[in-house]
Amino acid sequence: MKIVKTISEIRDIVKEWKKSGYSIGLVPTMGYLHAGHGSLIEQSVKNNDKTVVSVFVNPTQFGPNEDLEKYPRDIKRDSELVSSLGGDIIFNPEPEEMYRKYNSTTVKVEGLSEKLCGITRPAHFAGVCQVVSKLFNIITPDNAYFGLKDFQQYVIINKMVEDLNFPVKINPCIIVREESGLALSSRNIYLTDEERKSAFSLNQSLKYAQSLINKGEKRTSVIISEITKIIENVPYSKIDYVKIVNIDTLDDIEILETKYAVLLAVYIGKTRLIDNFAELF
Amino acid sequence: MKIVKTISEIRDIVKEWKKSGYSIGLVPTMGYLHAGHGSLIEQSVKNNDKTVVSVFVNPTQFGPNEDLEKYPRDIKRDSELVSSLGGDIIFNPEPEEMYRKYNSTTVKVEGLSEKLCGITRPAHFAGVCQVVSKLFNIITPDNAYFGLKDFQQYVIINKMVEDLNFPVKINPCIIVREESGLALSSRNIYLTDEERKSAFSLNQSLKYAQSLINKGEKRTSVIISEITKIIENVPYSKIDYVKIVNIDTLDDIEILETKYAVLLAVYIGKTRLIDNFAELF
Repeated sequence: MKIVKTISEIRDIVKEWKKSGYSIGLVPTMGYLHAGHGSLIEQSVKNNDKTVVSVFVNPTQFGPNEDLEKYPRDIKRDSELVSSLGGDIIFNPEPEEMYRKYNSTTVKVEGLSEKLCGITRPAHFAGVCQVVSKLFNIITPDNAYFGLKDFQQYVIINKMVEDLNFPVKINPCIIVREESGLALSSRNIYLTDEERKSAFSLNQSLKYAQSLINKGEKRTSVIISEITKIIENVPYSKIDYVKIVNIDTLDDIEILETKYAVLLAVYIGKTRLIDNFAELF
Repeated sequence: MKIVKTISEIRDIVKEWKKSGYSIGLVPTMGYLHAGHGSLIEQSVKNNDKTVVSVFVNPTQFGPNEDLEKYPRDIKRDSELVSSLGGDIIFNPEPEEMYRKYNSTTVKVEGLSEKLCGITRPAHFAGVCQVVSKLFNIITPDNAYFGLKDFQQYVIINKMVEDLNFPVKINPCIIVREESGLALSSRNIYLTDEERKSAFSLNQSLKYAQSLINKGEKRTSVIISEITKIIENVPYSKIDYVKIVNIDTLDDIEILETKYAVLLAVYIGKTRLIDNFAELF
């Protein structure tokens, strides 16, 4: 396992791999890896000859008042995890390497990017599409792996790849949770012990919603109202949104259809957490 | 030489080429090929193992009142030219193949795209960046060839490739002219005999400007004024713009610097023509 810092070096390595006919998997991350990332890496290692894990806290996807500076970083621990799972390369460029000059090229998935998390984070998904386009063009993977916790991100990247014909297959991977049910996130370290307990309400409300749906409830207003009650009932919580949407358009739906997602964004104290469950297929 | 209509077929061909280690050149065109395109194809054939000429009248780069419907097409003649010059594939998809579903992903080079031709053609360069991104992702060329007649397009594509790290080298190719000096363009067929004579004024004014510059004139206001006089002096002409710009920023300059371009856009009758000369290096 090797840590690569420059675009030219990773390109040279990829060139040699392609000459040998190796397939390449990419796991794009912002680092501070947890078992959720681990599951993406495992799938990539299983299904490709070579796996690159990019670890890059991308400044262009953070808003002016967000947590860019304090976002947790630990490249040593990340290396150990990637190495233990059989990954081949960590690509860990500095921001100056990824954005050498002033970048004025924007990539936007219009319509999908302005909804849900796009309301509180207006430039976020354009930043994600920009950096993912760059990583695809630098590493030219056959497969890329994205976690479904960032559900809107997955839908947007999928649409971008389809619209621009990127020669890469997008592989969605299921959410990995603590025993408590809390979805793994690098941002969970921001939580105090008390806040962590409150954060359990996200998954608990989703599980209750699922039980309602299993019993036949199809009215999304009823389901949303039950989720809201559970989350509002715990301390430190402030709901950003609770939505049930069509998974292609991300538009609200009133009655459950075949392909839907139940999506939550909730502040617990100062930490913004997201969670969801989706019927994808 | 083969005409390919579908993305999946061209991808299969490219895959086999890559397995054999062949280098690939792409000449993206809207067809109705002339000797200007021919010079791009010749350079690609000379410098790559395989050459793809894409012939696609891209709807997304035409404005609502532009000439999409009447834009000239002649795939038979195009095939003969590409074949005679040693090209390997014409990629000639239908619009429904390139834009299967509603495409909501935009690629924009902000700042450069709103100037010059972007003023009268506000969505044009976003359409160009979209289709060129798609072609790069479908054909994955090592080299791509663009004519310098579309100078702003060249600057924008170059910036897009740099910003998004597309793994392709952009090769600019010099303007090819008739003996009269008129720059070759598929749109020249719109001109009546009388209008054609007036169109000579574009190159004539550029040549006069070059002679002024050779004599030491550095004030762009003087050069622009002389160009304007020459063009306004012929019938059917209506100037859209005469500009002298920095070639990186496309901003107006007052005194000539090392890297500048003199750019013209002129209506001759109803036909909009562009021409330029540039000190690139």
